[in-house]
Amino acid sequence: AGDAAAGKAKAAVCAACHGQNGVAMIPTYPNLAGQHELYLVSALKAYKSKQRNGGQAVIMQGQAAALSDADIANLAAYFSSLPAGGK
Amino acid sequence: AGDAAAGKAKAAVCAACHGQNGVAMIPTYPNLAGQHELYLVSALKAYKSKQRNGGQAVIMQGQAAALSDADIANLAAYFSSLPAGGK
Repeated sequence: AGDAAAGKAKAAVCAACHGQNGVAMIPTYPNLAGQHELYLVSALKAYKSKQRNGGQAVIMQGQAAALSDADIANLAAYFSSLPAGGK
Repeated sequence: AGDAAAGKAKAAVCAACHGQNGVAMIPTYPNLAGQHELYLVSALKAYKSKQRNGGQAVIMQGQAAALSDADIANLAAYFSSLPAGGK
């Protein structure tokens, strides 16, 4: 499992679209707060490998390209630790 | 926007993986409860078109293949209407 504190430090850039609390202000972007950690790892890896396309995937392909496996684990741990719905 | 009541009727098959309340019991599957409606539409369309791959996408490609655009809109309306975190 990842390190949520390290993930939080890495997550500043994510907030622009996914919200400070992991709840996206823009309705075409997903909320991440409280999402399952293993699913977030899977999704980030699918963006990084460019297997995940469609919608606005190209944005996340670019973001994920710079992430190491440890970064992905840490970000997933962080967002899954946030309360669902931002409460 | 879709019809959440029609989406609920269509959502029985979704519950096996994504939970009765849109909170997945299996940690590799995403929670859908309270997710943004427009994001859910985008994701379902990307599965249907097979643009979204990686992870367990092949399962959702099969599920989404049978969905009309109206089904997709209704399912997105339904899951977005559920309380985040299943509370």
